[in-house]
Amino acid sequence: MPLTEANHSIPPASTISRKELRELVRTQLQMLLEIGDLTAAKSILKPVQPTDIAEAIEGLPETMQVIAFRLLSKDEAIEVYEQLDSSVQQSLCEKFKRQEVIDIVDKMSPDDRARLFEELPASVVRRIVAELSPTERQSTALLLGYEAGTAGRIMTPEYVSLKEYFTVSQSLERIRSLAHVTETIYSLYVTDSDRRLLGILSLRDLVTAQLDQSVGEIMNQDIVSVQTDTDQEEVADIIQRYDFLAIPVVDSERRLVGIITVDDVLDIIQQEATEDIYALGGVQTDGDNYFQANLLTIARRRVVWLLVLLLTNSVTGSILKSQQDLLQQVVALSFFIPLLTGTGGNVGAQSSTVVIRGMNTDEIRAMGPLQVIVREGLAGALLGSILGILATIWAAIFVVQGNLSVALAVGISLVAISILASVAGSSLPFLFRSLKLDPALMSAPFITTAVDVLGVLIYFNLARLILQI
Amino acid sequence: MPLTEANHSIPPASTISRKELRELVRTQLQMLLEIGDLTAAKSILKPVQPTDIAEAIEGLPETMQVIAFRLLSKDEAIEVYEQLDSSVQQSLCEKFKRQEVIDIVDKMSPDDRARLFEELPASVVRRIVAELSPTERQSTALLLGYEAGTAGRIMTPEYVSLKEYFTVSQSLERIRSLAHVTETIYSLYVTDSDRRLLGILSLRDLVTAQLDQSVGEIMNQDIVSVQTDTDQEEVADIIQRYDFLAIPVVDSERRLVGIITVDDVLDIIQQEATEDIYALGGVQTDGDNYFQANLLTIARRRVVWLLVLLLTNSVTGSILKSQQDLLQQVVALSFFIPLLTGTGGNVGAQSSTVVIRGMNTDEIRAMGPLQVIVREGLAGALLGSILGILATIWAAIFVVQGNLSVALAVGISLVAISILASVAGSSLPFLFRSLKLDPALMSAPFITTAVDVLGVLIYFNLARLILQI
Repeated sequence: MPLTEANHSIPPASTISRKELRELVRTQLQMLLEIGDLTAAKSILKPVQPTDIAEAIEGLPETMQVIAFRLLSKDEAIEVYEQLDSSVQQSLCEKFKRQEVIDIVDKMSPDDRARLFEELPASVVRRIVAELSPTERQSTALLLGYEAGTAGRIMTPEYVSLKEYFTVSQSLERIRSLAHVTETIYSLYVTDSDRRLLGILSLRDLVTAQLDQSVGEIMNQDIVSVQTDTDQEEVADIIQRYDFLAIPVVDSERRLVGIITVDDVLDIIQQEATEDIYALGGVQTDGDNYFQANLLTIARRRVVWLLVLLLTNSVTGSILKSQQDLLQQVVALSFFIPLLTGTGGNVGAQSSTVVIRGMNTDEIRAMGPLQVIVREGLAGALLGSILGILATIWAAIFVVQGNLSVALAVGISLVAISILASVAGSSLPFLFRSLKLDPALMSAPFITTAVDVLGVLIYFNLARLILQI
Repeated sequence: MPLTEANHSIPPASTISRKELRELVRTQLQMLLEIGDLTAAKSILKPVQPTDIAEAIEGLPETMQVIAFRLLSKDEAIEVYEQLDSSVQQSLCEKFKRQEVIDIVDKMSPDDRARLFEELPASVVRRIVAELSPTERQSTALLLGYEAGTAGRIMTPEYVSLKEYFTVSQSLERIRSLAHVTETIYSLYVTDSDRRLLGILSLRDLVTAQLDQSVGEIMNQDIVSVQTDTDQEEVADIIQRYDFLAIPVVDSERRLVGIITVDDVLDIIQQEATEDIYALGGVQTDGDNYFQANLLTIARRRVVWLLVLLLTNSVTGSILKSQQDLLQQVVALSFFIPLLTGTGGNVGAQSSTVVIRGMNTDEIRAMGPLQVIVREGLAGALLGSILGILATIWAAIFVVQGNLSVALAVGISLVAISILASVAGSSLPFLFRSLKLDPALMSAPFITTAVDVLGVLIYFNLARLILQI
C-alpha cells in the first residue's frame, strides 16, 4: 500500500486513548447508519485515518459495510479498501456493482491487489480480472505469477524510473507528473532502454544537486537489489540491515521489475516473528490468522506436536515400566518424576529459545556454535546446581524418614539433567540449521525426547547406585 | 541513524551470497592489515556498505580495529561507527585521540549517540561529553533526560521545520540547505514561533505544489504525534499501523522536540518480538544481548522461572506423596505421570502462545475473550480426545495384563487435562492483561502450576474411582 507521508487525525488534545477513539467512531457510525443519517455519518468519517476507518467498517454488521464504504470519496475508498481484512474485502466485492469493482480494484496498489486475489475464490478473481484495465490486468498477472512469500509477489511495479541523460530539472518534472501514481518518489531508479538497472538515487540527492547536472553524474552505481524469487524474510532482513526506504527487484536478466518499500517490511517482520513464536510453542502455521481458522484446522495445526510427545512419552513410560521393581521398593522415587522432567523440559526450552532467536536475529554472529554450546552447558551446570541443592534439601526434609539416598539421587540427577538439557537445547538448533532444516520447527521434539528419556534413565540408574539395589 | 536512500555495493553478478561476500571482505581486510598494506585495505573497503564495513571491523582482532577504522573517510567513519556493536564502539573510544572522539561522536546522530552513552561507563561518558560542541552536548542532555524505552530517548532533534508563511520555493531552499544534517527531508514539520506543531507535510506534497503557494495552504493540520513519554512499543505500533515514514514527538505543551523515523522502528519491532519470545521461553531480558552477558547474568535471568517451577513441583510432589498408598498398590500408575504432566504443559503452552501473541499483534481484536476461551476449550477437548484414545489403547496393550482400569484412568485424565490446560492457557493471559500485568511474563508459571497440580489430582482421584480403592 502507498507510504503515508501526510496524515489526518481526530480532534487534538483528547484525553482518551486512540483505541477508545476508534471504538467511539465505530459505535457512532453504526448508530448513524441505523437511523439512516448518511450525511452525519459521512462527516464523522472525514477527519479519520483510512486505517481507522477500515477498522470501524470491519466492526459493522455485514449489511451496513457497503453503505458505510460508499460514503467515502473515491481516493479514500481505495486507501480504506486496501486496509480492510481480506474477509471483508471479499464480502464487499460480492456486493459491489460492476463499475464499483472497476473503480476500486483497478486503482488499488498492485501488491495489495495481488494479496486480495490470493484470498478470493478463483471464480470471483476471474470475474474481477476481466473488468480490470489492460495495464492493471498485466500488473496482476505479473505479481501472481510469482510464488507466495517471494519478492516478486510483494513488490509493486509503480516506481519512478529515470534515464541517465535526464537533467535534474527534467527529473523533477517527471517526478511531479508521476507523484500521484507511484508508490514512492523518494527512491529513484535509473534504467537503460532495456530496463536494466544502472543506478539508484534519492530525492534528497536530486534536491541538493544543481539543476543542470545530469542524473548519470549524481546516481549511485553500486546497487543492492533482490531477485524476484528472493524469500520475503530475506528482503525484510536486507531492508532492516541497511536502513533502506525501498529496494529494487530485478529479474534474472537484471531488468528492473518492481520495488519493495519499507512499510511492507514492517508487516513481514511481525509475520515472521509470529511464525517463530508459534513454532516455539508447538503450533504449526500456514501464514493465516489462527483466530479466523475453524476448529478442525486449529486441531490439525496442534496435533502433530502432541502426537510426537505421545511417542516420546511412550518411550519414557517403557523405561519407567522397566524400573518397576525399584519403584515398587522405593515408591518415593515417583514423587520427583514431575520435578525432573519439568526442569529438564524448561532448561532445554530456555536454551533453545535463546539460540534459535539469536540465529534468526543475527545476534550470535560473533560466537561460534561451540562457544555457545559450552556457555550453555556451564549455565546448565550452574542452574542445575542451585536447583539440585534446594531440591535435595526439600526432598530430605519432605521425605521425612530422612532418606538421604533418595534426596541425593534427586539432587544429582537434577544437575545432570540441567547440563544435558542446556547442551541439547543449544546444540540441536545448530545441527538442524546445518542440515538446512528449520531449527524453530524441529528442535523442540528432539530436545524433549532426549532430555526426558535420558533424564529418567540417569535418575533411576543413579538411584540404584546410591541405594545399592 | 540516518535513513539510507542511495547505496553502495560489491561487484555485481556475483554467484556467492552476500553473507559469504561479507566474510570475504573481512578475511581480505585482516590479511591486508597484517601485512601492512593500508592502501589496498582502503580500496577494498571503498565500495562496501557502511553496515558491512562495521561487521567486518567487529570481526577483526581488537588491535586492528582502530587501524581499519582510520582508513575510512570522515563521513563514512561516522556512519560506520553508528553501526558498530556497542562493545566495539566503547573499545574504539578508549583508543581514540581526543580530536578523533570529537570528530566522530560529535557528528553522530543524537539518537545513536544517546544509545552509545547508555552503554559506556559513566566516567568515559563525562570525558566525551566535555569534548562535544555546545549544540551536541545539549542534544545529548535532552535525549538522556528521557527514560529508556520511551519516545524521548529514541527520537532525534534533527528535523526540518518550516513556517506557515514560507512559499514552496523558499521551503525547497531551506530543505536544500539542511539536507546534509537532518535525519530525513521527506517529512516536514510546520511550527509557530513557540515551536508548537501546527501542521505536517511531505516532500511529495511540496514537489507537486505550485512554487508560489504557501506552506500554510498545503500543510495538513490533522496530526498524529506521540509524547516524549510514550512507550517505544506504542510508537512502533503507530508507525506500523499507519505506514508513516516518521512521526513527530511533542512535549506536554505540544511543542515539537524531535522525530522518530521508520528505520528505528524496524529495530524496535524485532527487539520487542525477542522480548516476547524470551518471556514465553522463561528467560528474563534486560534488553541487552544475551550472548554478550556473562555467565552469572545469564543464570540470574533464567533462575527465577526455574525456582517458580521448583515450587510448583514441590506441591505436585506432596500430592504424589499423599497418594502413596495407591501408588504402592498400583505402581503402573506412575508410568504415565510424564505423559500427563507433559501433555498438560504443552497444550497449555500452545493455547497461551497463540493468545498472548494474538493480543500483542492485535489479531484477536474481532473476538471477545469469552469466545477465544470457549474455542480453546473445545480445541483442548478435541485434541485431548484424540490423544486420550491413542493413550488408552497404548496403555492397555502396554500394561500387558490388560489392566483396562489403569488405561481408562490415563485416557480420561488426558481429556480432562487437555481441556483444563487450554482453558487455563487462554484465560490467564486475559486476566493478567486486565490486571495491567505483562501476560507474556506472568502466564506460564500460573498455567503450569494449575495444570500440573490439578492434573495430578484428577488422575489419582479418577484412578481411585475406577479401581475402586
